[in-house]
Amino acid sequence: MRVLIVGTGLIGASIGLALRSLEGFSGEVLGYDASAVELKTALEMGAIDRALPSREAVLASGADVTVLATPVMPILDWMERLAPALGERQLVTDVGSTKREIVELARKLFNRPGRARFLAGHPMAGKEAGGAGLAEAGLFRGAAWLFTPVDEQRTELEREWVRLVEGFGARVMEMEAGRHDEVCAWVSHLPQMLSTALAALLEETFADDPAVRAIGGRALRETTRLGASPYSMWRDVAMTNAEPIAAALAALEQRLQHVRENLRTPELREEFRIANRFRKAGNRE
Amino acid sequence: MRVLIVGTGLIGASIGLALRSLEGFSGEVLGYDASAVELKTALEMGAIDRALPSREAVLASGADVTVLATPVMPILDWMERLAPALGERQLVTDVGSTKREIVELARKLFNRPGRARFLAGHPMAGKEAGGAGLAEAGLFRGAAWLFTPVDEQRTELEREWVRLVEGFGARVMEMEAGRHDEVCAWVSHLPQMLSTALAALLEETFADDPAVRAIGGRALRETTRLGASPYSMWRDVAMTNAEPIAAALAALEQRLQHVRENLRTPELREEFRIANRFRKAGNRE
Repeated sequence: MRVLIVGTGLIGASIGLALRSLEGFSGEVLGYDASAVELKTALEMGAIDRALPSREAVLASGADVTVLATPVMPILDWMERLAPALGERQLVTDVGSTKREIVELARKLFNRPGRARFLAGHPMAGKEAGGAGLAEAGLFRGAAWLFTPVDEQRTELEREWVRLVEGFGARVMEMEAGRHDEVCAWVSHLPQMLSTALAALLEETFADDPAVRAIGGRALRETTRLGASPYSMWRDVAMTNAEPIAAALAALEQRLQHVRENLRTPELREEFRIANRFRKAGNRE
Repeated sequence: MRVLIVGTGLIGASIGLALRSLEGFSGEVLGYDASAVELKTALEMGAIDRALPSREAVLASGADVTVLATPVMPILDWMERLAPALGERQLVTDVGSTKREIVELARKLFNRPGRARFLAGHPMAGKEAGGAGLAEAGLFRGAAWLFTPVDEQRTELEREWVRLVEGFGARVMEMEAGRHDEVCAWVSHLPQMLSTALAALLEETFADDPAVRAIGGRALRETTRLGASPYSMWRDVAMTNAEPIAAALAALEQRLQHVRENLRTPELREEFRIANRFRKAGNRE
């Protein structure tokens, strides 16, 4: 099996390393990245066997499986380019953070006579900083890897890719694309926007005041950690899932206002009680 | 030296364990807790040498140093009870999370002829759950321990207590009480209220939907971790620092609204840029 990874950053290079570490995988791993630096790093760390030199080489790679591991907007662009260039026996899959727009486009361009298959996926793994340099073969171990169906078929090649993903140690799940984006707005995109807003607010309020760094403990570190996340990735998430994210943010604003107005009333007890219940139900570390 | 710890929960019992693990400390550690269970646990784990049976015994303990390690409201109550019962050569110190009201009361009741000394302190350490059972001798290692001056004197006994705290591995700092409460509103109380509000919102939005637990990763865990914190402690923080917390919450609400209104505009890039700067300046894990 020949696998081509388009976008050899943190996720792409980690997929390469995970493939290489699988006993049952003896294929070839090709890579391409718009950044020559990322591509070189991925090659040097052994995440890919061979680096493709150009976009044209990606279209002519002859890969059995092409993995789109870029932010969402470039995934959509690559889908447009790849669809006319690939054939029925080839598979394209992706790791995009939002799935509704990708699945809608896949229905237009793929999974029809003469066209390649498209399998939409999303590993719930990452770090607050990107880049091939941080890639790890074990990045997906224990993480959920969601697939959001484009149609009801599953070819043998698709099943084979899912087995490889299970081999990475990921928990494979299936979820309708719209519901995926809705749930992710709450459990992933909302925490991100919140952490970014909190870190930005503290930066503007305190600038270089050393007291903040000196006093702030684990609570501050954990709630602002995602503030280090790169805009380059989150721009596309915000663009392609704006309505669900806006709804979640508006709900949180209201909730914070409720807390603010009840700092001295028994309503605060109720808020802690409900929050305690959420944590008890299984979100402990 | 005889030390009495009033409140042998997580912080109080950890102070007892830290004292016991210090080579330079050979004194006696007494303990009292309104909860017989917490007191028994602290005794059994060796955090205290002897358990006092009653409030009356606390007032007549003859301790050189009495450490008030309860939430803020009971600290204020104990200060009222202890002031008339203690003498000039005794020291009372505390670990309360807010300091303005405690320092104001200390100025009225302590640090004057015939009265004991009061040294107001705050170790920036804790866990999302309390109780003696989670206590550790190393809890304060590397953590800031703030002292907020009641007056400009420092007796030998106060200097001795500060040396013991340094022996726990804490970074001792001094800060004016009002400024302490203001900074803590931003770096400690705001993250707490935020995490409680987010956890409560998710609990009400998703109830027992397994998708949330299955999909949510480290981002969700970290931003809701403090949602497990007990109301019993935070009630007193909210009560005694309501205005600074309300101001910080209002600022965050505005900031979230700004993010929400700019999910599809270049303003979002600016927000990520400022947040990135906060994290780069030294709040990395």
